[in-house]
Amino acid sequence: MYPVDLIRKTRDRQPLTPEEIRFLVAGAAAETIPAEQLAAWLMAARLNALSLDEIRLLTLAMRDSGERFHPHSGPNPIVARAVDKHSTGGVGDKTSFLVAPIAAACGLIVPMISGRALGHTGGTLDKLESIPGFRTALSLDELATSLRANGLAIVGQTPALVPADRVLYALRDRTATVESPGLICASILSKKLAAGLDALVLDVKTGSGAFLRNAAEAEFLAALLVSTANAAGTRTVALLTAMSQPLGSAAGNWIELAEAVALLRNQRSPLTEDLRLLSLHLAGWMLHLGGIAQTPEDGRTRAERSLADGSALDRFLAMVAAQGGDPAVFDHPEVFHRPAVTHTLRASRSGRIVAQDTTALGWAVQRLGAGRETVGVSIDPHAGIHFHYRTGDLIAVGQPLATLYASRSDQVPEAITRIESALTWEPSDSSQPSATAIAPPVPVVLQIIDADRAAAILAKASNLR
Amino acid sequence: MYPVDLIRKTRDRQPLTPEEIRFLVAGAAAETIPAEQLAAWLMAARLNALSLDEIRLLTLAMRDSGERFHPHSGPNPIVARAVDKHSTGGVGDKTSFLVAPIAAACGLIVPMISGRALGHTGGTLDKLESIPGFRTALSLDELATSLRANGLAIVGQTPALVPADRVLYALRDRTATVESPGLICASILSKKLAAGLDALVLDVKTGSGAFLRNAAEAEFLAALLVSTANAAGTRTVALLTAMSQPLGSAAGNWIELAEAVALLRNQRSPLTEDLRLLSLHLAGWMLHLGGIAQTPEDGRTRAERSLADGSALDRFLAMVAAQGGDPAVFDHPEVFHRPAVTHTLRASRSGRIVAQDTTALGWAVQRLGAGRETVGVSIDPHAGIHFHYRTGDLIAVGQPLATLYASRSDQVPEAITRIESALTWEPSDSSQPSATAIAPPVPVVLQIIDADRAAAILAKASNLR
Repeated sequence: MYPVDLIRKTRDRQPLTPEEIRFLVAGAAAETIPAEQLAAWLMAARLNALSLDEIRLLTLAMRDSGERFHPHSGPNPIVARAVDKHSTGGVGDKTSFLVAPIAAACGLIVPMISGRALGHTGGTLDKLESIPGFRTALSLDELATSLRANGLAIVGQTPALVPADRVLYALRDRTATVESPGLICASILSKKLAAGLDALVLDVKTGSGAFLRNAAEAEFLAALLVSTANAAGTRTVALLTAMSQPLGSAAGNWIELAEAVALLRNQRSPLTEDLRLLSLHLAGWMLHLGGIAQTPEDGRTRAERSLADGSALDRFLAMVAAQGGDPAVFDHPEVFHRPAVTHTLRASRSGRIVAQDTTALGWAVQRLGAGRETVGVSIDPHAGIHFHYRTGDLIAVGQPLATLYASRSDQVPEAITRIESALTWEPSDSSQPSATAIAPPVPVVLQIIDADRAAAILAKASNLR
Repeated sequence: MYPVDLIRKTRDRQPLTPEEIRFLVAGAAAETIPAEQLAAWLMAARLNALSLDEIRLLTLAMRDSGERFHPHSGPNPIVARAVDKHSTGGVGDKTSFLVAPIAAACGLIVPMISGRALGHTGGTLDKLESIPGFRTALSLDELATSLRANGLAIVGQTPALVPADRVLYALRDRTATVESPGLICASILSKKLAAGLDALVLDVKTGSGAFLRNAAEAEFLAALLVSTANAAGTRTVALLTAMSQPLGSAAGNWIELAEAVALLRNQRSPLTEDLRLLSLHLAGWMLHLGGIAQTPEDGRTRAERSLADGSALDRFLAMVAAQGGDPAVFDHPEVFHRPAVTHTLRASRSGRIVAQDTTALGWAVQRLGAGRETVGVSIDPHAGIHFHYRTGDLIAVGQPLATLYASRSDQVPEAITRIESALTWEPSDSSQPSATAIAPPVPVVLQIIDADRAAAILAKASNLR
């Protein structure tokens, strides 16, 4: 079998056989197929679109390209079902720190393999590493031990897990082949399925802060993910959710963790209600698909109870301790938070904020040192932004809009410029009679995409592949 | 400027600017842009098609990526116009050995930069190197000296000439991006234009032995080449010609040279009339575009005269001597030809040969040792095939069809199988009353594509890009 023949087939829209897909993926993982041939194939796949069958085969071949985690087998199998949540990425998205301990508190295990900050979005691993001592590099044996003890662990990808994705993802980043639903689907699911999940809940975001701003494209990706994961034997639904403003108030690393822990402690605020509601929705589905709850609504009720009774908080703190972190930092989170520079941005005008370019806000957070533009750059765990408003709020001149945290004061002006240009205002002298100072909560969950709904979407929209 | 941004633009069918195309080509030539990024761009260009403007800019940027030959400038400029002929490749195509000395004999210079055998077609350089001592690796200074002395030189590409094409062509071969009219056009013309040509005649082949078997695709490529070369300031026409059977009788290396020299010596045969006629057509256009002849017909008359009076033969032999070869091998060419194995293939049936898969015949020649499947493999200068029939001929059982030459007898059976399966027969008991033993000559020139005709073709067929 020659790589050039497989490139030619995908170039000419001829389907690859299962053997050909496995050959390609194995060659990527072992780096026996040269990068230029993989790159040409990726561009052909990006432009010509893979079939649903090819996407499923690619996902499975990538999942099997390295070692896998098998929670229910081996000498000391775990009985509890393994469930996870995956988000396609947004600004201020910290639901993992809520849903993982909730699911664990309710009787599931959550072997969550997470990623790092890149571009305008943050990374779960970077956020956790703002806790002194926290280790995200666990072996699969350590992962199993943690799951047995606490029901959850949030870790980085091991070098041996899905090596094909590591090679292909790095290539896609350099060759403008990231934006392909089929390749995105295979990349996401290969890693999730390699963790041996029984069920998976996907949070597919759309709107100004999402990678897929267009709702139809996001819906299509969600359907592709749900269809492929279910075909691979993992019960999966996707929640299509709004990412038209930062989720919650905090965007950064430590401040996001602190905001999640505040909710685990039942310290609610109007600025974090969207985060709380979305987390309960996601956790409700995790509990339902994991067989703990009869319905997602029942799951949500159980999730809310685990917050109220402190059992989810306990699981979170136990995980922090198990992975080498010092849970004492959460006793006085505002004391632990010591950025070098703090700056309050006040409104220079009055009016109503009617829309936000959330990607631009994400870049403002990144430029303060909380994120990274390219892989491997170190970040400032205390940098970030607290946003003090929601879309729809009526703002007075001089009112604090945001608090910015950075390590150097020269990082602040660019972030301010980005925030200010990200906001769309309507004049406050608007004659709308129903104007109120505090906007009503925005519904975050736009649509539930289960296997049936996914099939209907795929049947109608095959041209989006 | 970042390569990934240019890949993204071509991926999304946005035109590249002249600066962007120059950046890409310079990065390819200097190998500062990684192979995987060039490969992804090539696939995007292959699938999305470049615009006519982009193809022209790419051609010029590639032409300028290394050193160039300037016959009419420098301390000792050549006055005669520089003209060349380029063929898209076929089986038994040896017109270069006729048209170059004819054009030189008639007062033009021909700085012919040629290539090597690859796949099912032979290479001009390999054929010339079957002459003991013949050197094809000349510096540009040596090229100028040869042109001043004899009016012609046939040489290989110097390492410094069009380095971008060397890099891109090697990549295209490995990434299934060879078959792209825009990329083919830029690759062919960048090398031809770097030789400082005033005029160029293209022989674009179509039919069973051509790279572009489909006539519409060949016509489109011809139009693209003519349009681009004229826009770059080189007077250019293309002859669309039939490659539905080997050109002439010989296909190999030495035997092709010997066949060309026989025609230069006015030793004609019914089996080589197609070769003679096509060479006269091509040379006629070279003389016309080079300003020697008022019309192509006038050019053809002058070409024929240079054959009749021996002046073209003189130029050819002078070139052989100038490039280190021993012209004495042509005194008794049949004595010099000493293959280890000679095998006569006789017809096992009677009937009329009505069609030939000429690509299969080219592979038969290659498998006898006359060609190479991959770059760098050495060849047998004496291997090859003499075909003793033309399409349309009525053949009797036992009649010699072909003579095969090889270095090892185990190479013969595969070649025979390929020849036999390449021929389409009609029974000899056909009731057609006009059947004759010797077929009438096949018209080889199908169409002349000048700048006006090219514009009309491009206007109608932009979807073939």
